[in-house]
Amino acid sequence: MSDASQLIQHLQGATSVAREYLAEARRVVSQRCAPAGRAESRLLQQHQRALHGLAWIATTVEAVACAASWSERLVERGQLHEGEELVLTVGVGEYLAQLAHGIPMSQTETFRPAELGLEEAAAALAGQGGARALMTRAAAPETRRALVEHFRGGRGVTETAFDEDLDVIRDQFRRFADKEIIPRAHAWHLADELIPDDVVAQLGELGVFGVSISGDHGGMGLGKRAMCIVTEELSRGWIAAGSLGTRSEIAAELIACGGTDAQKSEWLPKIASGEVLPTAVFTEPDTGSDLGSLRTRATPTNSGWRIDGNKTWITHASRSDLMTLLARTEPGTSDHNGLSMFLAPKPRGTKEQPFPAAGMSGGEIPVLGYRGMKEYDIAFEDFEIGAEGLLGGVRGQGFRQLMQTFEGARIQTAARAVGVAWRAFDLGWRYASDRKQFGAPIIEFPRVSDKLALMIAETVLVRELSHFAAEEKDKGIRCDVEAGMAKLLAARVAWSNADNALQIHGGNGYALEFEISRVLCDARILNIFEGAAEIQAQVIGRGLLAGSR
Amino acid sequence: MSDASQLIQHLQGATSVAREYLAEARRVVSQRCAPAGRAESRLLQQHQRALHGLAWIATTVEAVACAASWSERLVERGQLHEGEELVLTVGVGEYLAQLAHGIPMSQTETFRPAELGLEEAAAALAGQGGARALMTRAAAPETRRALVEHFRGGRGVTETAFDEDLDVIRDQFRRFADKEIIPRAHAWHLADELIPDDVVAQLGELGVFGVSISGDHGGMGLGKRAMCIVTEELSRGWIAAGSLGTRSEIAAELIACGGTDAQKSEWLPKIASGEVLPTAVFTEPDTGSDLGSLRTRATPTNSGWRIDGNKTWITHASRSDLMTLLARTEPGTSDHNGLSMFLAPKPRGTKEQPFPAAGMSGGEIPVLGYRGMKEYDIAFEDFEIGAEGLLGGVRGQGFRQLMQTFEGARIQTAARAVGVAWRAFDLGWRYASDRKQFGAPIIEFPRVSDKLALMIAETVLVRELSHFAAEEKDKGIRCDVEAGMAKLLAARVAWSNADNALQIHGGNGYALEFEISRVLCDARILNIFEGAAEIQAQVIGRGLLAGSR
Ligand SMILES: Cc1cc2nc3c(=O)[nH]c(=O)nc-3n(C[C@H](O)[C@H](O)[C@H](O)COP(=O)(O)OP(=O)(O)OC[C@H]3O[C@@H](n4cnc5c(N)ncnc54)[C@H](O)[C@@H]3O)c2cc1C
Ligand SMILES: Cc1cc2nc3c(=O)[nH]c(=O)nc-3n(C[C@H](O)[C@H](O)[C@H](O)COP(=O)(O)OP(=O)(O)OC[C@H]3O[C@@H](n4cnc5c(N)ncnc54)[C@H](O)[C@@H]3O)c2cc1C
Ligand SMILES: CC(C)(COP(=O)(O)OP(=O)(O)OC[C@H]1O[C@@H](n2cnc3c(N)ncnc32)[C@H](O)[C@@H]1OP(=O)(O)O)[C@@H](O)C(=O)NCCC(=O)NCCS
Ligand SMILES: CC(C)(COP(=O)(O)OP(=O)(O)OC[C@H]1O[C@@H](n2cnc3c(N)ncnc32)[C@H](O)[C@@H]1OP(=O)(O)O)[C@@H](O)C(=O)NCCC(=O)NCCS
Repeated sequence: MSDASQLIQHLQGATSVAREYLAEARRVVSQRCAPAGRAESRLLQQHQRALHGLAWIATTVEAVACAASWSERLVERGQLHEGEELVLTVGVGEYLAQLAHGIPMSQTETFRPAELGLEEAAAALAGQGGARALMTRAAAPETRRALVEHFRGGRGVTETAFDEDLDVIRDQFRRFADKEIIPRAHAWHLADELIPDDVVAQLGELGVFGVSISGDHGGMGLGKRAMCIVTEELSRGWIAAGSLGTRSEIAAELIACGGTDAQKSEWLPKIASGEVLPTAVFTEPDTGSDLGSLRTRATPTNSGWRIDGNKTWITHASRSDLMTLLARTEPGTSDHNGLSMFLAPKPRGTKEQPFPAAGMSGGEIPVLGYRGMKEYDIAFEDFEIGAEGLLGGVRGQGFRQLMQTFEGARIQTAARAVGVAWRAFDLGWRYASDRKQFGAPIIEFPRVSDKLALMIAETVLVRELSHFAAEEKDKGIRCDVEAGMAKLLAARVAWSNADNALQIHGGNGYALEFEISRVLCDARILNIFEGAAEIQAQVIGRGLLAGSR
Repeated sequence: MSDASQLIQHLQGATSVAREYLAEARRVVSQRCAPAGRAESRLLQQHQRALHGLAWIATTVEAVACAASWSERLVERGQLHEGEELVLTVGVGEYLAQLAHGIPMSQTETFRPAELGLEEAAAALAGQGGARALMTRAAAPETRRALVEHFRGGRGVTETAFDEDLDVIRDQFRRFADKEIIPRAHAWHLADELIPDDVVAQLGELGVFGVSISGDHGGMGLGKRAMCIVTEELSRGWIAAGSLGTRSEIAAELIACGGTDAQKSEWLPKIASGEVLPTAVFTEPDTGSDLGSLRTRATPTNSGWRIDGNKTWITHASRSDLMTLLARTEPGTSDHNGLSMFLAPKPRGTKEQPFPAAGMSGGEIPVLGYRGMKEYDIAFEDFEIGAEGLLGGVRGQGFRQLMQTFEGARIQTAARAVGVAWRAFDLGWRYASDRKQFGAPIIEFPRVSDKLALMIAETVLVRELSHFAAEEKDKGIRCDVEAGMAKLLAARVAWSNADNALQIHGGNGYALEFEISRVLCDARILNIFEGAAEIQAQVIGRGLLAGSR
């Protein structure tokens, strides 16, 4: 049997034993949280750690499964070579070891099998032929070393999306980022400036804002995987470059799924072209994770609606033209059923006057990273929206409309994380290759090359996981579980890559002059926004108990 | 049997089984790296991951052992109450689980027993009565919850050093930090300013710079544990406040251990009073971890020495009066044997002219955190030092003199990390108590309170580990292994505490306005300077193979 077909067998075997392990975990957590078949809120809270452990187990298992199916696609096309084999071994071996011994939900919250009484199931997982072989090979220093040597030899790992058009798109955006973004991003960050208008215009011309908007409405109609690829490449340049499209993605999804025909034809073409830059106005000072309880009021008037309340953390709020704004239209309610979504045009602001509209005021929130669009708090007082601004013309559906949209946004965020993770790797790699200590390039020391090997393997695995979520989303089915998994794991990988790449830089990593100091700060946002890591785990865990996936 | 005495039995049992596990690990790594009894460089590099795994195992075991001996001291004094019991259970239980299942050497480098073929030894460890009991209790959500509830009830965990004088000192410095540092530190950081002169003067009056300088030379003669306590409290205020003393510590140690009588009486009293602020001038652009290979030359002249070369990353270089400067005096050498240490006076600089001395020039290096003293690169060209500047009047001993001194500096750095870790905890705690989401203070959600519980437990454990190293150092024996352990683990804990406390802040953690955003940046330095984490692991691993400890 060839190495490749043996590897595939191992991956398939490991996937099925990992799925069995997951089934066991789900059974235990169900018993705890849903003893009568339906999850109970009180128990979900009491057993939150177990629930989130389940979410992390499922996420890790899904990453393994996606790796296995990636290997199959590669083999079909004769593209499973040394680099891919090593990535699969190192990455899947590590993830299996995490399943068997403990998954880092955060730097100190390691979820181990014993917490669910699954020591035996974990041992069975670790003992199964394919899984054992992968774990053993991944734990051998030679395997990680071989992966790094493979890269040092100038050979990488295929990035094909098994679709020529998509590969062309990746190539195009890589060249764009290399030429227009990377050479300038760090200076923009340090100066804490907006991404220049001309770059935004270029992105518009490239079609960034309409990747997944249908052709009928002026978009490229390419679906979520294309969006991922574009986002990965731009974010590899700079997280802000990959994030300009996030708000367009949210607005376009909201309108495409929930808007009236008039709203669609009014806004989608302008969003697709980049003529209209949207901003997402949801979070409030007292309301972040528990978005359903927000309090900004929308009161009916003769001509439409009046908005009163405070929003915060609104990205790109000043230099944007259209707000997707979630507000409470049903007085007396306090949960998500009383919320409605609005499309509210606004004039662009300037540095001196960020919010020139009547009834809007606010200011900038200085931040660690993720600069280039700027964040703002905004106070609304008698701010007016016309009657045509209510999304779909329906009240009380805003939260559900948004949640569905968040699936796309979270997949897009996973793609941002993948891009940031690659940039961290690139920087760590270059530094480790150039820097000499103790008479050798530091990349030759195992503690340095191990870090790089894990970066490569995890980033590939999480890219495949997020493409999988994108494909699910394209099928039109609810996929908050899959989207949450991609976002959750990708954010962890971006953060650990950045942390380790900075470590490889030694003291220079701490100097603002070196790009990795920025990438660390940029990476830190990914675990927080678009649903914090703990919220993602909650969504996934609840979804699993409810039988999704 | 009372709960307390049962706990102590468990801790003792766990310590001895952990030591057995360590012995096994050491045996395996010795076989790999020192097959003929003496460690071979080539093998040390080839098996670096195993060597560092051994270092991490030993560090974790030492933390467990220190916890056990802390519990014994507490019991002797009738001070082992609920809080201490919970800390010991949560902390030791987690560290035992790490030994049995995998230790995070970094976010992605988890060292698992299988890498040394120690699955059975790990199972034996996990199965032993005391260890099993501790691990089981630590894994139970109720235990972590009880620890947090204990703190919520306004009851903490004793911070006594079992010495009334030391407790008074802690109290005094806590009050000072609360009053003078905490209210102002964040603004100083944001403005990227030097700690004001008057604060430095106050610290001088409090004796900070002479804590461990002998009474004969104008110091307090209090030993390293006192230094730790002072440093912890000041660093809890701001890492820079706790770091002002680092350079005095290094200079005073160098002079006390290696200086001539004339050098001692010239410098020690002025260092102790704070009249003379030293700066540590070792690192060069091409030479960080491999300090022994540095190239700055010291050439004999008629009146003393001439210095030529480039240094970088020199903290507090401008506003300081005395350099401890490591340079190559023996032409033709390229290793540590050719290095000598100098005491070189310099004038204080200003913002406009940081280095007004003849033969010195340089500029500031803007950094992520650890501000308040500023870092500089310095070029020396024909810079002159008098003949009396050669430390101890001996050539070729500079590196060894420094290495011995680094023990104290690393213990002091561990104490800085402990202080930063506590500050991160304090901030996370306060935010979690105040912030409400989903109708409850977020501290009531297990994922939030679990983070806080681990922060408390790990910070206490690592404090005890660093006090242990301090006590060893006070005995006057070589203790680079113990100092390295304290520094290694404390840096990890400070970093994970900061990371998790920021996460607890949600979006606000990302705002520069919130102190935790600074604490994250401050914490990141601890794994890099005073010997990066990988270098600490190397020192510990080699020391263990050589039979130290
Ligand atoms: C740079 C940046 C850009 C942003 N851009 C936008 C934007 O454009 N538009 C917009 O509307 N919002 C935006 N946000 C807001 C972002 O979505 C929120 O910060 C995020 O949803 C978290 O909410 P929060 O900050 O209120 O944290 P909180 O909800 O207060 O959470 C604090 C902590 O508690 C945890 N927690 C909360 N509830 C639970 C629970 N039940 N169980 C366990 N743990 C829990 C969280 O995980 C987190 O760790 C942005 C934020 C940032 C920092
Ligand atoms: C804020 C700050 C303040 C500082 N203050 C001072 C000061 O006052 N005086 C002073 O002299 N210095 C100071 N330093 C310098 C500091 O001590 C060095 O940065 C540190 O020793 C690491 O050296 P380096 O930066 O050259 O990293 P390198 O030595 O280049 O290391 C880069 C990476 O490679 C790893 N590595 C290197 N060798 C090996 C190996 N053999 N095996 C495995 N991994 C390896 C390192 O662990 C690190 O991750 C300061 C640094 C900073 C950032
Ligand atoms: C926590 C959180 C997941 C919601 O939890 P919740 O308040 O318990 O809400 P539920 O999960 O019960 O969902 C409420 C409703 O939305 C629906 N819904 C949720 N997710 C959905 C999805 N992906 N697709 C379609 N409908 C969805 C539910 O079915 C439910 O509908 P119902 O009222 O008809 O039963 C949500 O508030 C959240 O994602 N918070 C993070 C905020 C965020 O990401 N902000 C980023 C701003 S840029
Ligand atoms: C990597 C490192 C540990 C040294 O490794 P090395 O070059 O292999 O040096 P060795 O460990 O062989 O030590 C060299 C000599 O110093 C001696 N030495 C080392 N540590 C010592 C200690 N703690 N006490 C006394 N002597 C010591 C050794 O015994 C040896 O002496 P010898 O020449 O008589 O045999 C050292 O360069 C280091 O700590 N680097 C990090 C730099 C740092 O912390 N910078 C912070 C600047 S603020």
